[in-house]
Amino acid sequence: MKIIIDAMGGDNAPLEIVKGAIDAHNKLGVDIILVGSGEEILRSFQSLGLGNLPDGVSVVNASQVITMEDDPAKACREKKDSSMTVALNMLRDGLGEAVVSAGSTGALLSGATLIVKRIRGIRRAALSPTVPTAVGGQAILLDVGANVDCTAEYLVQFAFMGYAYAKYALKLNDPRVGLLNNGAEKSKGGKLQKEVHAFLSDAAGDGKINFVGNVEGSDVLSGKVDVVVTDGFTGNVMLKSMEGMSSFLMSELKGIFNGSTKNKLAGLAVRNDFKALKAKLSVGGSIMLGISKPVIKAHGSSKAAEICAAIEQAAAVASSDTMEEITRRLEDMKVPETEMN
Amino acid sequence: MKIIIDAMGGDNAPLEIVKGAIDAHNKLGVDIILVGSGEEILRSFQSLGLGNLPDGVSVVNASQVITMEDDPAKACREKKDSSMTVALNMLRDGLGEAVVSAGSTGALLSGATLIVKRIRGIRRAALSPTVPTAVGGQAILLDVGANVDCTAEYLVQFAFMGYAYAKYALKLNDPRVGLLNNGAEKSKGGKLQKEVHAFLSDAAGDGKINFVGNVEGSDVLSGKVDVVVTDGFTGNVMLKSMEGMSSFLMSELKGIFNGSTKNKLAGLAVRNDFKALKAKLSVGGSIMLGISKPVIKAHGSSKAAEICAAIEQAAAVASSDTMEEITRRLEDMKVPETEMN
Repeated sequence: MKIIIDAMGGDNAPLEIVKGAIDAHNKLGVDIILVGSGEEILRSFQSLGLGNLPDGVSVVNASQVITMEDDPAKACREKKDSSMTVALNMLRDGLGEAVVSAGSTGALLSGATLIVKRIRGIRRAALSPTVPTAVGGQAILLDVGANVDCTAEYLVQFAFMGYAYAKYALKLNDPRVGLLNNGAEKSKGGKLQKEVHAFLSDAAGDGKINFVGNVEGSDVLSGKVDVVVTDGFTGNVMLKSMEGMSSFLMSELKGIFNGSTKNKLAGLAVRNDFKALKAKLSVGGSIMLGISKPVIKAHGSSKAAEICAAIEQAAAVASSDTMEEITRRLEDMKVPETEMN
Repeated sequence: MKIIIDAMGGDNAPLEIVKGAIDAHNKLGVDIILVGSGEEILRSFQSLGLGNLPDGVSVVNASQVITMEDDPAKACREKKDSSMTVALNMLRDGLGEAVVSAGSTGALLSGATLIVKRIRGIRRAALSPTVPTAVGGQAILLDVGANVDCTAEYLVQFAFMGYAYAKYALKLNDPRVGLLNNGAEKSKGGKLQKEVHAFLSDAAGDGKINFVGNVEGSDVLSGKVDVVVTDGFTGNVMLKSMEGMSSFLMSELKGIFNGSTKNKLAGLAVRNDFKALKAKLSVGGSIMLGISKPVIKAHGSSKAAEICAAIEQAAAVASSDTMEEITRRLEDMKVPETEMN
């Protein structure tokens, strides 16, 4: 298993990216290809006290870097020798099994669509992060921002793609799929949600998918479902609202533990547990479901631990049957033309 | 100032409602009219160790109760002697300045629209809760669920109504209004968001409203804006996603503080601070902005403290110029026909 890493993407590149990749190599035994400025990557190796490249770790030089200032829609085309473009080209050419990048989400999504391409028959790729749940599991959310305007067909495809990912990459038995809505009743939502609800209910009746109906924003982290389906606009608001509440609470807790001397001592006692909670909360890599090979977007602020986790995720998907399952299920996702518009 | 209370609405009616109303009466000096089963209300008084009705507190008998099983759209019409319907009729007839109810949101919204009526010229009433912000203030969010399908005109009216509330009821100087979107750039969102952004930007240019542009889900609690404008579908997902994250974290924290003996001691040390944080987090009453008189929906699970807070909120709005300001600004909210569709 070879994972291709965009070593230049994200706020902490290349040092933390390189460190995370080496950690993943040591932990999982996967081969690593670091793409980026050879000079800077080697300097990172030196900073980490590593003189030589370990066996199974290689460097591919790329002279350009895609930044947040580049137009996401054009970046991969315009910067042909960027670390991101080179990484995606290598994935397309079979020189590795997955790409991990902490660079621009928009550039990675359009680059992946342009270079690696979507699975034939899939209309749109969805940005699909996983989040922890209250019962100790994970849920996959899609789409959280790639597609603002969605048709019923897109959402139906997201449902089946999320199901495939949860079943094969997360290894869940018959994952439960929910449609994000403003209430549990089937009459809830707008035209889009009603259409998707009707289609998925029928599909569930035919034993094609374990659709459990509508879920609300408060159900996302509860462990009630394994897959949350939504359009990219609503999904973005959902994810960022959760992040906002999480930041708010963490800041309030910090205030409490910086209060009296008594509180400071209490804070010291639970310090490690809080660190573990923070780590649990950091949204992992987001896979671009619908792209024909695994492309994982790590958070821009990723440090070594997050990069290592994203590589672990990439390896799990790449060694699973996720993409094959999506392809096998294309017929089941077919929404009649009349229902679409 | 007389506040009319639906004593029978919510999970803890009538005891906690009565208790909260008495607390508000004692704290604020407002007169209270409790509407509901006279027998049950008097029994609540006895449970609270109060033999007689205090001066300024009266009871109006209503023989029916609207439950969650009633059809929200018809409940107030079908149960004409329900505590909610009687309370709304009394508000319409000027027998009190505001209504507070912890009963069914849908029934209260349609009842208020039917009986108390919207401000002339306002197209839709919006369910508008306030939330705490990281900088110690409050923000008002609208709409969070009353209107799933919104036009640009509705959202423009929400913006001006939220501005009026923040200025007169929350007493903020020139409140900052943001449009909930999936990114900060003005090109973000669907057709609806782009239209509303354009209109409010122009209005801001003309000095009519302090519109600061798009905000994301992560900005809602940050204190970046005082008013968050959105359609009811997205607003519902936003609010419930925040609630979901809050429950998730609170449950994780409970787990941490129930861990080792050391952690339990730490938990004891910060116990009161955590209680205060929980109280801060409990979303307060939601006003139905657009209704011609103040109608406040308290959370169904409200206990005395939340009811007391909702009554305080009701009194603040009723003694403010909020409704007058909305009426005065109707011209400024006018969206040209062509822009609407």
